[in-house]
Amino acid sequence: MQLALSTWQEVEDYLRTQSGVIVPIGSVEQHGPNGLIGTDHLCAEVVAKGVGDRIGCAVAPTLAYGMSQHHLGFTGSATLRPSTLMLVVRDVVQSLAVHGFRRFFFINGHGGNVATVTAAFDEIYAEMSLGRSEVPVRCRMTFWSSGPRGKVLAEELYAGVNGHHATASEVSLAQYYQPGAIKHAQMTPKVAPTAPQFFEAADYRARFADGRIGSDPSLSSPEHGKRLYDAAVDDMVEAYQAFMAY
Amino acid sequence: MQLALSTWQEVEDYLRTQSGVIVPIGSVEQHGPNGLIGTDHLCAEVVAKGVGDRIGCAVAPTLAYGMSQHHLGFTGSATLRPSTLMLVVRDVVQSLAVHGFRRFFFINGHGGNVATVTAAFDEIYAEMSLGRSEVPVRCRMTFWSSGPRGKVLAEELYAGVNGHHATASEVSLAQYYQPGAIKHAQMTPKVAPTAPQFFEAADYRARFADGRIGSDPSLSSPEHGKRLYDAAVDDMVEAYQAFMAY
Amino acid sequence: MQLALSTWQEVEDYLRTQSGVIVPIGSVEQHGPNGLIGTDHLCAEVVAKGVGDRIGCAVAPTLAYGMSQHHLGFTGSATLRPSTLMLVVRDVVQSLAVHGFRRFFFINGHGGNVATVTAAFDEIYAEMSLGRSEVPVRCRMTFWSSGPRGKVLAEELYAGVNGHHATASEVSLAQYYQPGAIKHAQMTPKVAPTAPQFFEAADYRARFADGRIGSDPSLSSPEHGKRLYDAAVDDMVEAYQAFMAY
Amino acid sequence: MQLALSTWQEVEDYLRTQSGVIVPIGSVEQHGPNGLIGTDHLCAEVVAKGVGDRIGCAVAPTLAYGMSQHHLGFTGSATLRPSTLMLVVRDVVQSLAVHGFRRFFFINGHGGNVATVTAAFDEIYAEMSLGRSEVPVRCRMTFWSSGPRGKVLAEELYAGVNGHHATASEVSLAQYYQPGAIKHAQMTPKVAPTAPQFFEAADYRARFADGRIGSDPSLSSPEHGKRLYDAAVDDMVEAYQAFMAY
Amino acid sequence: MQLALSTWQEVEDYLRTQSGVIVPIGSVEQHGPNGLIGTDHLCAEVVAKGVGDRIGCAVAPTLAYGMSQHHLGFTGSATLRPSTLMLVVRDVVQSLAVHGFRRFFFINGHGGNVATVTAAFDEIYAEMSLGRSEVPVRCRMTFWSSGPRGKVLAEELYAGVNGHHATASEVSLAQYYQPGAIKHAQMTPKVAPTAPQFFEAADYRARFADGRIGSDPSLSSPEHGKRLYDAAVDDMVEAYQAFMAY
Amino acid sequence: MQLALSTWQEVEDYLRTQSGVIVPIGSVEQHGPNGLIGTDHLCAEVVAKGVGDRIGCAVAPTLAYGMSQHHLGFTGSATLRPSTLMLVVRDVVQSLAVHGFRRFFFINGHGGNVATVTAAFDEIYAEMSLGRSEVPVRCRMTFWSSGPRGKVLAEELYAGVNGHHATASEVSLAQYYQPGAIKHAQMTPKVAPTAPQFFEAADYRARFADGRIGSDPSLSSPEHGKRLYDAAVDDMVEAYQAFMAY
Repeated sequence: MQLALSTWQEVEDYLRTQSGVIVPIGSVEQHGPNGLIGTDHLCAEVVAKGVGDRIGCAVAPTLAYGMSQHHLGFTGSATLRPSTLMLVVRDVVQSLAVHGFRRFFFINGHGGNVATVTAAFDEIYAEMSLGRSEVPVRCRMTFWSSGPRGKVLAEELYAGVNGHHATASEVSLAQYYQPGAIKHAQMTPKVAPTAPQFFEAADYRARFADGRIGSDPSLSSPEHGKRLYDAAVDDMVEAYQAFMAY
Repeated sequence: MQLALSTWQEVEDYLRTQSGVIVPIGSVEQHGPNGLIGTDHLCAEVVAKGVGDRIGCAVAPTLAYGMSQHHLGFTGSATLRPSTLMLVVRDVVQSLAVHGFRRFFFINGHGGNVATVTAAFDEIYAEMSLGRSEVPVRCRMTFWSSGPRGKVLAEELYAGVNGHHATASEVSLAQYYQPGAIKHAQMTPKVAPTAPQFFEAADYRARFADGRIGSDPSLSSPEHGKRLYDAAVDDMVEAYQAFMAY
Repeated sequence: MQLALSTWQEVEDYLRTQSGVIVPIGSVEQHGPNGLIGTDHLCAEVVAKGVGDRIGCAVAPTLAYGMSQHHLGFTGSATLRPSTLMLVVRDVVQSLAVHGFRRFFFINGHGGNVATVTAAFDEIYAEMSLGRSEVPVRCRMTFWSSGPRGKVLAEELYAGVNGHHATASEVSLAQYYQPGAIKHAQMTPKVAPTAPQFFEAADYRARFADGRIGSDPSLSSPEHGKRLYDAAVDDMVEAYQAFMAY
Repeated sequence: MQLALSTWQEVEDYLRTQSGVIVPIGSVEQHGPNGLIGTDHLCAEVVAKGVGDRIGCAVAPTLAYGMSQHHLGFTGSATLRPSTLMLVVRDVVQSLAVHGFRRFFFINGHGGNVATVTAAFDEIYAEMSLGRSEVPVRCRMTFWSSGPRGKVLAEELYAGVNGHHATASEVSLAQYYQPGAIKHAQMTPKVAPTAPQFFEAADYRARFADGRIGSDPSLSSPEHGKRLYDAAVDDMVEAYQAFMAY
Repeated sequence: MQLALSTWQEVEDYLRTQSGVIVPIGSVEQHGPNGLIGTDHLCAEVVAKGVGDRIGCAVAPTLAYGMSQHHLGFTGSATLRPSTLMLVVRDVVQSLAVHGFRRFFFINGHGGNVATVTAAFDEIYAEMSLGRSEVPVRCRMTFWSSGPRGKVLAEELYAGVNGHHATASEVSLAQYYQPGAIKHAQMTPKVAPTAPQFFEAADYRARFADGRIGSDPSLSSPEHGKRLYDAAVDDMVEAYQAFMAY
Repeated sequence: MQLALSTWQEVEDYLRTQSGVIVPIGSVEQHGPNGLIGTDHLCAEVVAKGVGDRIGCAVAPTLAYGMSQHHLGFTGSATLRPSTLMLVVRDVVQSLAVHGFRRFFFINGHGGNVATVTAAFDEIYAEMSLGRSEVPVRCRMTFWSSGPRGKVLAEELYAGVNGHHATASEVSLAQYYQPGAIKHAQMTPKVAPTAPQFFEAADYRARFADGRIGSDPSLSSPEHGKRLYDAAVDDMVEAYQAFMAY
């Protein structure tokens, strides 16, 4: 049940028996020579919708923009400052809590969001812990690709070269979701370099010349994407239900 | 050219000859008994994509969440506080300006955003006027439905009862964009009441029992939506080009 | 009843029977060659005091500084950032609400304030809509010159050339209020140019060389100011009472 | 030279030879049974204008609202939060610095502003000290009543019972400035109590039943006000010139 | 009773009979040629611990970083912006108030903190005064050196040349507390210059070449420090108890 | 070289050849029945000082207060909100960068800080990536206990029951650093429970009755603490040098 495609009365009905909602969150940032700028939010969105279709849980509109300061050296990338993204998360959670939503399951497509969104959760909890809010909301964030099936499949498909950014698996999933936007590009080296840490945008660009980290997305295909989608939906259904039961 | 569906190199190429970008912005809020919660951002998005397809200009990912505090009395609505939305607009504009984007054309689907987004523009300009930024960005916001063709058509289709919220025209356009999510509902009275002003969510709900203002969206149809779409794309192409030439 | 000229006991008495208050708001910004930098707040103030004298309603001290970033290219102009002005409006409203004031009628002298102050109102309402405040305040903002009598008179006096900034009517009203500060200046062209949009201060100055927009304030006189004052007080009394009865 | 009553060209001329400006700042808060709510900003304003008239220096529009949280137990008082007032001071200083103003002399009418405005100055300086601003502004704040002549005269007029809030001297000065708003009230005890410290509004009201601290403003008169005005203008001229020469 | 060296159960026991807590606050800033960068927080800390040891009251961990923008011209100094320090004070007070602490006695080692911390207190009180918090906290801030014994002793030891920054007395106290970090340096002139006001870091450095203001810390010794410590602990015990009884 | 125990000239000398600094960061929060509230910042501090003593690198004063909202159900715990702590980190980094410090190595004692401090780093980098700061600072955060020697030793000492909060190893290290504050307490069950996730303070307290997570700190001893200290200093020296060479 996508909120965006529902009427308010339908959501009212939903809340009579349930109080969970999925919030897809991604980014607007470069994903290497053949990856889409929207890869992260597209992946989070398609998996979230898949979970919603499968088990009927509510899915909020996608938070497309994430924390991507390190990608600003590549054209088309956009970031919310961490402090801004924290306020966005707070406002979305507080708004939906007004209606009775209590458990917020963020399906995430971008590693760069983790610290900021976790800090946003703590900012929300701090209001409760400091005695300034009585509304008992609970939040959890999970990567669409972090479940057991997804991890096994990515290793099966791209043994050792799935990588860390512009991964073969996320490019595949985006190709499956947006078959009209499959891109082709020469990539040298075939497998991109890695590094233990990066800092601001100029530093990132200096380390990762075409934007990829440790990946070989030339291996991607929409067929892989379909399999990764199925695995991710299975994983996320399980994770969502575990959170609801926690 | 949707940024989300492009690679960074494609955007780099685009910026060699152009510096404009469209940012669709909408809301997540009730739209009456047969309107979708996503109506405003869906309408802004479909028109923005249409303009991008027609003339090849860049279209940023949709800002789905807007300023909707007055709708929080209806389940499923979500708001960003004005202060939050202002930071979001600032961050998106500043990010894309890093790459060379200079003109930001916001296609808007929600009246409640106007004050906040205009204030956000002034906050951005204030940094320039106070001598704290040298990057000469310029922003304009326009309703997808405010062009000459769109206004004429809406009047032709719904003479006098298009209304102010959950309008017949926006419901039609959303039906055209999302034909799988067409809803049907009894609405009494047929044409919703109006009021000169409303305040917070409880006040809004007290004045407008089912969420509509002055509209009869039972008149909506996806066929109307197609015609409204064509008119809006024509209007917005013209408006975008006028802004680029300003 | 001006709050500034009252004792706290007098205000306490007032609140036994009434809960409305007028807040004049203006700006500190250039008003062309013969207009005063204080024009906007002086006009809002004199009309607000006139309404207070006429019907005994409370009038808060004037918010002299407004949102004027676009005028910073002209010496002496000062702006509050939109985000600052929003906090000022919030604090004034929340303070007076402590005592029992419930309806805040802002008489405005400056178009540049509209978006920011409207956003401030929504920020205040959002706290209520999000369940974080129980105090039911309501706000409205009106231009001193926007009532029916004022519009007719301005057209009668300056047919077609009242303009959009440094208008003949506001310069006249300020001359009436501050007869010791009437200025004379040559202005070329006689009627200033207009433009559909402006952005930051440098852009504004490039479009409007002496600061005026579309006006011929050489037509101004304190006698006109007196007539405009009477019209505006009549209009604003009516508007205030309509708001109280809403 | 009051900015509010000048044209931008007049201010431009002024800045050819001078770079100082006086900013009057006060409060909107109770001043006991016969003191006006506007006492603090009226006193700061009349003295600032007097200095401007005497030596031709620029005087910005009055910051009427100050930090008055402790007075909110008395009807009609209004406060800016310290964090808000700090932003207001920053914006006013940064705005006027755009034009070339470099020295900001705040004439203050309210003890409660001292900490907040001093913190605001440090916030402004911190940007310079942290290498984020090159504009060398300097600020000083002085009470209108703190000069040598003013102190001697207040002691001469009200030996030992001028007090700390709703003082006889400030009530006198306000009576001189606003002779149409002289109030009369019984006050018991004649000299109000004092206390070494107070906290929030409820605490303040519990300690100071009618709002006064240590004062006997029944001694006030507009004639005293005239003498205090003359002394204060002399004192502040001296203090302003010392600051310009510092 | 230092909170840092206690278990939560010990603090729970404490709060059964008491509700006061001492918060030492200092700075990280230059203290002249033989003074330590940590002087201010070390002095506040050692005195606070002394009071805690003497009478068993709770002592919170030291707020080492203060408002030191004016010292940033000297290597090793660090500042919190005033707005940041205000939030720190707010969070510490609100946190401890959750457990039942009600009276917060700040022992201060740095003049530059006074305005900001006082503004922070008012920000906290403002929430109460505006009806947004019910928790009746009360705060007071005192210099460790401002009690009667301390003032007499400093005058006895350094008649007239204790000074205003990098004072002989604070350097002595730090030497007593940190005997392993006693520094020796030539200082010319022997007694540092003074000035009535300073502004940003560059201005401060221009006025006070080696960082000192009006002091001769070559007179300092750990023996003096011991005597100053004893005096300060006596003074602060008295001041703390007076605050608890207020 | 502790900044707090150095003069500004000593720091100036240091910066002639080095640009790194260690910032210890911890928390003020319960650590179970026999753990100190200061455990986290004491551990970070003692290890940081050990590294500074060993290799002469600069060590800034400890950030004692961290992000501890989830511990507010236990008396004596205090938190900075994530948004506050982010500003603290920003201000400390920006201040020290003024002098030429470029690499900031945070030795952390508290898991709850990770998200917030990482977000703070990104907020700092975002200013660079958005073109608003030219100062190339780089930050890294490491747990004192996360190095290879430390992990091996903890496993050797407390095989499988070191736990996640109020760990045997951190209690031991604090006992070594503060031998005068060793506490003894009965703990039931001997090994505390664990849970995959917790939320706000009430939830945390409900899951972990005496504050511990998965640990048996009755095994702690100052002798263990000494061994853990040596291992941690070795580990952190290595990690600091690796960061400087990165």
